[in-house]
Amino acid sequence: MTPTVVACCQLAPVAGELASNRERAEDAVRTAVDNGASIVVLPELMSSGHVVEDRRQALACAESAEGPTIRSWARLAAEFDIVVVGGFCEVAQGQLFDSAALVDARGLRATYRKVHLWDHETSCFVSGDAEPPVVDTRFGRIATMVCYDLDFPEWVRLAALRGAQLLCVPTNWPAGPRQVDATPMEIVRIQASASVNRMFIAACDRAGDVPGTSWVGASTIVDVEGWPLATAWQPGGSTTTIAYAGCDLERAADKDVGPCNNIHLDRRPSLYRGLVEDPSAGSARQ
Amino acid sequence: MTPTVVACCQLAPVAGELASNRERAEDAVRTAVDNGASIVVLPELMSSGHVVEDRRQALACAESAEGPTIRSWARLAAEFDIVVVGGFCEVAQGQLFDSAALVDARGLRATYRKVHLWDHETSCFVSGDAEPPVVDTRFGRIATMVCYDLDFPEWVRLAALRGAQLLCVPTNWPAGPRQVDATPMEIVRIQASASVNRMFIAACDRAGDVPGTSWVGASTIVDVEGWPLATAWQPGGSTTTIAYAGCDLERAADKDVGPCNNIHLDRRPSLYRGLVEDPSAGSARQ
Repeated sequence: MTPTVVACCQLAPVAGELASNRERAEDAVRTAVDNGASIVVLPELMSSGHVVEDRRQALACAESAEGPTIRSWARLAAEFDIVVVGGFCEVAQGQLFDSAALVDARGLRATYRKVHLWDHETSCFVSGDAEPPVVDTRFGRIATMVCYDLDFPEWVRLAALRGAQLLCVPTNWPAGPRQVDATPMEIVRIQASASVNRMFIAACDRAGDVPGTSWVGASTIVDVEGWPLATAWQPGGSTTTIAYAGCDLERAADKDVGPCNNIHLDRRPSLYRGLVEDPSAGSARQ
Repeated sequence: MTPTVVACCQLAPVAGELASNRERAEDAVRTAVDNGASIVVLPELMSSGHVVEDRRQALACAESAEGPTIRSWARLAAEFDIVVVGGFCEVAQGQLFDSAALVDARGLRATYRKVHLWDHETSCFVSGDAEPPVVDTRFGRIATMVCYDLDFPEWVRLAALRGAQLLCVPTNWPAGPRQVDATPMEIVRIQASASVNRMFIAACDRAGDVPGTSWVGASTIVDVEGWPLATAWQPGGSTTTIAYAGCDLERAADKDVGPCNNIHLDRRPSLYRGLVEDPSAGSARQ
């Protein structure tokens, strides 16, 4: 079986430049398709650039899920019969969301609103309150969530339990202090998440200069065992580039990890009730 | 503040050799203490060796939590005022458990019975049904679980939510196919688990020959950001050795990951209910 080629387009959207950001994304999707990609992932807030400090600015950059950005992605998806997953600054009934859209040849299949907001995002965006969607596409079942959501293994697990074979994650990973030249922890975390769920993960980070923030540039596609198939990361900083990997998504349908073990069936949900309790209930024994 | 030295004693217990395994553990604990360790972690099934195929053999090697192995660890803990966490083959009311004990100068503080059983362990052992214990010690709050339990991020999260600053994990990690010379996925997973919980993790693997099985030998101590502080792992196979790391366990009391974010408070427990549902309820959306 021919693997499905997944592409992560690590682009540099510019804050407030909606038209040129749309063009950037379109050009990258076309390039990715030329190189064989069937599933194309774009960064978080691809439509608007990194507008998270000032609600007015964010509102000026926001579009609905029927706006020009998603329409443009849907046109590309229809033209090439591909899936596009990307982040956009969404407005709905006057509220702003840090959202991801999944489109295929049929059009918009799912919108996801980032649940776990990072840093000043709370001053612009409202937190979503729905699980990561899992969409049946002609390539397999694809889920999406956004950036900091990935730091919550509960959230990734839910996507996997709902049947996702590939999790596509638009991100803006701000660079922080870390061991020089070591694999960034952002990649380590998706490796682990993929391996404990036997699910492919394609995280698409951004590049480009933003005042006060630099980016890890760690767009990476990992397989069901957690091994990176492709990464845009390099020591020294982020670059605008596209990472490609062939993924046999059928592998993610099989959760066996040995002759007697299945990573999902071995779960003990009745013992996990502490995860859904009010956090103030937690305390050390003794 | 002087960091607390944690030691993982990657030993080679021999199946069925209870007395010599006890001696091996005692020698290693004394060596670790000589080198400054205050918290000493021993492998899974340290008392009995790898007895997981034959229930009769396992029963012959089993001890109660008041048996000679735990008494010997408790004596050492009292003598040096340290904490010892190690795995033992436990019998209680005729049932066998793949257990971990945590002892300190006060004696046996907690017994944990492995909940997520691996491979043929189910033919010998009964699965536990209690959460990982979190014990207040003079060094900080220490939790324990055993080996395959670690592959369930729900379980690690529970330990962290209950206040664990250090998670000590006796393991027997069987070696499987993997990318040559790449960091074993067992280490990648504890790195990620530590980083998303801001909790130290000390996993103590085993070494030594067992017919049909070799070991990753990946005993590793990682800090609250997921960076390995010390590892016994080396390409080519497991060795008998002790890995040491100084850990400032107070760091694990702080779950902030930025000026606006706290990895535990940012959780959305009410949205995680799918994690405690019957797994057959899961299905992909259209």
